[in-house]
Amino acid sequence: MDTVKVFAPATVANVGCGYDVLGFALEGYGDELTLTRRADDQLVIKAITGASGIPLDPATNVATVSIRALLQELGVSAGFEMTIHKNISPGSGLGSSASSSAAAVFAANELLGRPFTRQQLVPFAMKGEEAASAKPHADNVTPSLLGGFTIVRSYDPLDVFAIPFPSGLQAVIIFPQVEVKTSDAKKILKKQINLSDAVTQWGNVAGLISGLFLSDFDLIGRSLQDVIIEPVRSILIPSYDEAKQLALALGALGYTISGSGPSMFALTQHASVAVAIRDQVSAFYRSRDIEVISFISSINANGTVVIP
Amino acid sequence: MDTVKVFAPATVANVGCGYDVLGFALEGYGDELTLTRRADDQLVIKAITGASGIPLDPATNVATVSIRALLQELGVSAGFEMTIHKNISPGSGLGSSASSSAAAVFAANELLGRPFTRQQLVPFAMKGEEAASAKPHADNVTPSLLGGFTIVRSYDPLDVFAIPFPSGLQAVIIFPQVEVKTSDAKKILKKQINLSDAVTQWGNVAGLISGLFLSDFDLIGRSLQDVIIEPVRSILIPSYDEAKQLALALGALGYTISGSGPSMFALTQHASVAVAIRDQVSAFYRSRDIEVISFISSINANGTVVIP
Repeated sequence: MDTVKVFAPATVANVGCGYDVLGFALEGYGDELTLTRRADDQLVIKAITGASGIPLDPATNVATVSIRALLQELGVSAGFEMTIHKNISPGSGLGSSASSSAAAVFAANELLGRPFTRQQLVPFAMKGEEAASAKPHADNVTPSLLGGFTIVRSYDPLDVFAIPFPSGLQAVIIFPQVEVKTSDAKKILKKQINLSDAVTQWGNVAGLISGLFLSDFDLIGRSLQDVIIEPVRSILIPSYDEAKQLALALGALGYTISGSGPSMFALTQHASVAVAIRDQVSAFYRSRDIEVISFISSINANGTVVIP
Repeated sequence: MDTVKVFAPATVANVGCGYDVLGFALEGYGDELTLTRRADDQLVIKAITGASGIPLDPATNVATVSIRALLQELGVSAGFEMTIHKNISPGSGLGSSASSSAAAVFAANELLGRPFTRQQLVPFAMKGEEAASAKPHADNVTPSLLGGFTIVRSYDPLDVFAIPFPSGLQAVIIFPQVEVKTSDAKKILKKQINLSDAVTQWGNVAGLISGLFLSDFDLIGRSLQDVIIEPVRSILIPSYDEAKQLALALGALGYTISGSGPSMFALTQHASVAVAIRDQVSAFYRSRDIEVISFISSINANGTVVIP
């Protein structure tokens, strides 16, 4: 096999109470990457379609940085060229760079005869995240690679895994076309928090994980609360509180920020509720002259996959 | 039925990473309470055996305070007299007052024809905790009433429930005979913590809950880490670090403080490891001239029960 084409899903990180720890993968929305083995040892990005402003320089592009980390760990010299089709804009809060990193290391691993498991690919994809945002996040690359609902238990040593989730669970993504820089979203967070708020937060983490294992939608909904990050970051998203109240009034289990925003997501087990949230929250933003990309997705259990 | 005798188990609260949220119930160690209906509407404590210094005054004893809260909610006037046999000392860190409160409300509920579920009894028992420590904790009364591993997801509104745990899991309790006042153990905690430490903590909460659901002992062990409370409170427990290192060297999945101490607990799935920890950590403390009560317990799945 000299060429492989893969799909790496977009992802929602943080998931309310689980800042830097929880994430899940989306269905049908993500990056496609075609990787071809080269005779030399060069890494070459031939084209990136679907988004602009992404560097083609292999020294700074997240896909090539991630593959280089993989090759270095493997101790082999190999060359690849690639085309990337993105349907997640950078700066969406849906793990755009993570999808490219995940796709790249997954494809390279396929062409090299699968020396690594999916979980073992995570640290290489994190090198791409580090190139994109100066910090080696794992909370988007983990769900993009593994699929499903994922936990980053620890960064040092790295300990990541997927957990079960109820099959009927659906996410509604609301992506207003405004810019929130990840670096700004990081900067405005307080470095010190109240212990009492932290207790509230890990009570909700315990509840959310339990709700996912138990397929208890009501418990999932009660646990989708974030008393630490959302109150600060939501200031960067226009009309956040009104959009959230609208989604909750329409029956969302919960509604909060995806990653560092501006995308937001609702969870629900009801198709009709999902449609109502998608349509009415989108209409709400358009009534405020803010364009919106919105879609409904089940939780993607497969993660990154080879596609025809 | 005019008389009922109940057993309410001792409990381990916090469980490492889950300060104020997680807890589990112990087997064979707890309070026995015999409750008898009276013709008048008085609450009377006839005797407390097994521990000294506990008030018999129904206005301050946690058992009578809890029953009074139950009667008030029910809107009935009823009188009871009781004898309590404690085999958990107050100040152990094993939920001594919580066991009395749990036993009292469970017994009263039985004699009144079970108007409340176990979960509904938790707020009444919390009134006893409030009488004992000025704060209505739920993290000991919940496992004592419900049994098993429990989560206090939220205090307002109160949201408590039990989750599955692997049947082979055993706790080793090490209770050095030194005094740690709960009020001191509360006071020395910092009210502000680093966000980065909080993230580490809720990563471990997510890992521990997942490990319990998945019966993944290794994951339970990796997640039994507390970077916020243990580093501060362990200072109040003599030779804590050495005892912990000894238990871990003997194969404990984890070893940390029970509640606010001075009791400590190890978890393991191996009977031989449990015996080694119990014997060698006890011997270690005795070699330092500190007397120790120690025992091995499986996780008590039943909570408070009627006994013959």
